[in-house]
Amino acid sequence: MLTNDELARWDRESFFHPSTHLGQFARGEAPQRIVTGGEGCYITDRDGNRLLDAFAGLYCVNVGYGRPEIAQAIADQAHQLAYYHAYAGHGSEAAITLAQMVMDRAPQGMARVYFGLSGSDANETNIKLVWYYNNILGRPKKKKIISRWRGYHGSGLMTGSLTGLQLFHAKFDLPLDQVIHTEAPYYFRRPDAAMSESDFVGHCVAQLEALIAEHGADTIAAFIGEPVLGTGGIVPPPAGYWPAIQEVLDRHDILLIADEVVTGFGRLGTMFGSDHYGMRPDLITSAKGLTSAYAPLSASIVGQRVWDVLARGTDENGVMGHGWTYSAHPIGAAAGVANLKLIDSLGLVGNAGTVGAYLNDRMQAALGDHPHVGEVRGEGMLCAVELVADRDARRFFDASEGTGAKVVAAMLKRGVIARAMPQGDILGFAPPLCLTREEADRIVAVTTEAVAEVLG
Amino acid sequence: MLTNDELARWDRESFFHPSTHLGQFARGEAPQRIVTGGEGCYITDRDGNRLLDAFAGLYCVNVGYGRPEIAQAIADQAHQLAYYHAYAGHGSEAAITLAQMVMDRAPQGMARVYFGLSGSDANETNIKLVWYYNNILGRPKKKKIISRWRGYHGSGLMTGSLTGLQLFHAKFDLPLDQVIHTEAPYYFRRPDAAMSESDFVGHCVAQLEALIAEHGADTIAAFIGEPVLGTGGIVPPPAGYWPAIQEVLDRHDILLIADEVVTGFGRLGTMFGSDHYGMRPDLITSAKGLTSAYAPLSASIVGQRVWDVLARGTDENGVMGHGWTYSAHPIGAAAGVANLKLIDSLGLVGNAGTVGAYLNDRMQAALGDHPHVGEVRGEGMLCAVELVADRDARRFFDASEGTGAKVVAAMLKRGVIARAMPQGDILGFAPPLCLTREEADRIVAVTTEAVAEVLG
Ligand SMILES: Cc1ncc(COP(=O)(O)O)c(C=O)c1O
Ligand SMILES: Cc1ncc(COP(=O)(O)O)c(C=O)c1O
Repeated sequence: MLTNDELARWDRESFFHPSTHLGQFARGEAPQRIVTGGEGCYITDRDGNRLLDAFAGLYCVNVGYGRPEIAQAIADQAHQLAYYHAYAGHGSEAAITLAQMVMDRAPQGMARVYFGLSGSDANETNIKLVWYYNNILGRPKKKKIISRWRGYHGSGLMTGSLTGLQLFHAKFDLPLDQVIHTEAPYYFRRPDAAMSESDFVGHCVAQLEALIAEHGADTIAAFIGEPVLGTGGIVPPPAGYWPAIQEVLDRHDILLIADEVVTGFGRLGTMFGSDHYGMRPDLITSAKGLTSAYAPLSASIVGQRVWDVLARGTDENGVMGHGWTYSAHPIGAAAGVANLKLIDSLGLVGNAGTVGAYLNDRMQAALGDHPHVGEVRGEGMLCAVELVADRDARRFFDASEGTGAKVVAAMLKRGVIARAMPQGDILGFAPPLCLTREEADRIVAVTTEAVAEVLG
Repeated sequence: MLTNDELARWDRESFFHPSTHLGQFARGEAPQRIVTGGEGCYITDRDGNRLLDAFAGLYCVNVGYGRPEIAQAIADQAHQLAYYHAYAGHGSEAAITLAQMVMDRAPQGMARVYFGLSGSDANETNIKLVWYYNNILGRPKKKKIISRWRGYHGSGLMTGSLTGLQLFHAKFDLPLDQVIHTEAPYYFRRPDAAMSESDFVGHCVAQLEALIAEHGADTIAAFIGEPVLGTGGIVPPPAGYWPAIQEVLDRHDILLIADEVVTGFGRLGTMFGSDHYGMRPDLITSAKGLTSAYAPLSASIVGQRVWDVLARGTDENGVMGHGWTYSAHPIGAAAGVANLKLIDSLGLVGNAGTVGAYLNDRMQAALGDHPHVGEVRGEGMLCAVELVADRDARRFFDASEGTGAKVVAAMLKRGVIARAMPQGDILGFAPPLCLTREEADRIVAVTTEAVAEVLG
């Protein structure tokens, strides 16, 4: 910060920031930015910087910043009824309406919507529901959850276990035993460069089958996956991956949880990633795009097959002991209703598809042949540039060099926010879905300049 | 609902309510209530009912409903900047200001505030921090958490394990192994009626010592407790309990987590329950009262001893991999700032003490001698009436009779909301802190009538 005043000092002295280097931040060695406003794809900070946010916050401000329609819906709800709980059949008009709107947009076969606050808590709810389901079905041993290395599903104790990234495991004693990991469908990092895409899918399937055989299908309750790996590197699946995985899960009676926290409500150019890739999930996790982050809200969307067993479970056991005080909070629900309407009226799902394709195409044209770019990849309004030390040998930079972070810093100097993904040297792009072609051009130009500055 | 329309149908067909009997609700056999507004201690529903809410939502709407000051702060924040993340040193003016305001109010020795969304996620954060702390200190085995039977700490997998109530364990395979439970400091339910209050404290201490000896202090990281047991029955501790427990914890180098989700920010007539009872917590969990539920926000308040180790941990290991997308959400932070100001300007901490004492006193006078009332107890703006089949023999009703629920239903007919606590037949009262003496009188009168109707 330029301004060294009370606020700046309180920030260093009192505020424990998430995902931050605590020691450096406290000592003033790590940067601080106090954000004050935003409009469309831009944010502004207290020092007067105006930045093009090519990561939409944490890929969540899907409709863009400063939408008065959503702000007004929040304001109206706050004045009318900021809060009442949703336990024991209570509800608000906003929450019920949003439940219906989510159902109208969800893939086929969904039955009910449970609202929480965060993507993490929605995944936690889904795991609890899966365990309850198998207990009601009289299969108390069928409880393990398969996740993928490089998956991101949150940073709680269970959800951080589902997450398959070192940063979220080390020093936290994760993963917990109930979670086992299988190979990430990350074609660029395939074990053998000679493998074709379809061979690699076969390899992923074989790995999954081996894991199931090792533990026994009767011990495995569910498989969780993001349609496109997100925080693990923004990696779309190889062609045919999801249908092949789905077949294995069906055969072993393993539920599929689609974690659509990033992909839900339009980011891939379709309402849900499950539809995009032909997944048939039993449970869907969503958050971010549900409210475009204007207020905290998550949703666990429960498929009919699971719902029927849950309802039977309460007939046998009474009230289900699961709930957060702020489940279905009216402020979040009002934001969600206004947000989903805006996505429709602005045609943002379509724009994510077309401008997203344009962004990916331009990025490929600009950087696809750079000697330190291993791959440009993406889907819809998601794009990644993977940096490598040696392109032909697929040799990566040493993590200690922080190459990705250096490029992102060089972009920031030029007024564009991208994200250095936490594992590998991968530049991540996930702009608001309202991105224009001109804004896409600027992102590509700045990325190209920054790569040149850092890597030549 | 009287109105049988689209909204009522969507509610039954699409909305998965927390803590609800799913089968009955879906079939229309369990009641539905759509809440539309509120003012002070009253809520109104779509059918035109106006109800005195003697449980403040879920003991969270501490300043009362319909406060325009908080609604306006939310509205202003929504229009100015609804969201930006707080990762990697980012923040908003509201979040930083609130961190400082929390520190100004917190008990001595606190160092930093981490913001989440729910009481559950704040407890989860605290457990993660405790594990990290012992890993940095090189004590990888010191990880178990002691909680109390009848404690309530949330309904996630870890937090539901900390919770010591059957409803939250059964069919969910909880508690997880890392959590062990000790006796609740519930004097009314002491094992031997002849035990004095101080003998009972000695008994609780002996139980704790035995548990520590059984597992070994070198395997136990922390003890978590609510200053006053809440959902487990609204049970203030016997005199001297906390100092006696604190001494044991200190001796075995076991951290204390004070779960002040209910008691934080005024409910006991003091800013924090820790101050009220002389606890010296290393970590404090708060939520509800922090925003009076106007927007979802929780806080983990980290003491200096723990903070120093966490900061050292990031010096040794880099960025801490813990965060929620919506950590320190600006809407929640703005609500929190306005809420804490309102608590001060309306003198609600003081009112909680005086009118809370009045409520407890009147309830005791009205029902203390009733043959089916075992005990009237409370502290600050918390009160409970424990129903018994036989007062002298301390014999409880059979759970299947649902006696507590029947009395609460009889109160609802008379326009007052109380809560039948989930384990035992215990009427719970936790009104907004702005309760007046007249409103307290009405709660007592209606409770008395309802007890007479159900139990004679
Ligand atoms: C796919 C996915 N799942 C879950 C989460 C966790 O969501 P939250 O940060 O809201 O807890 C995230 C957050 O980035 C995510 O990307
Ligand atoms: C003492 C205590 N801790 C934690 C929680 C969990 O809070 P939440 O429901 O916001 O997750 C509660 C909720 O009632 C509580 O009373």
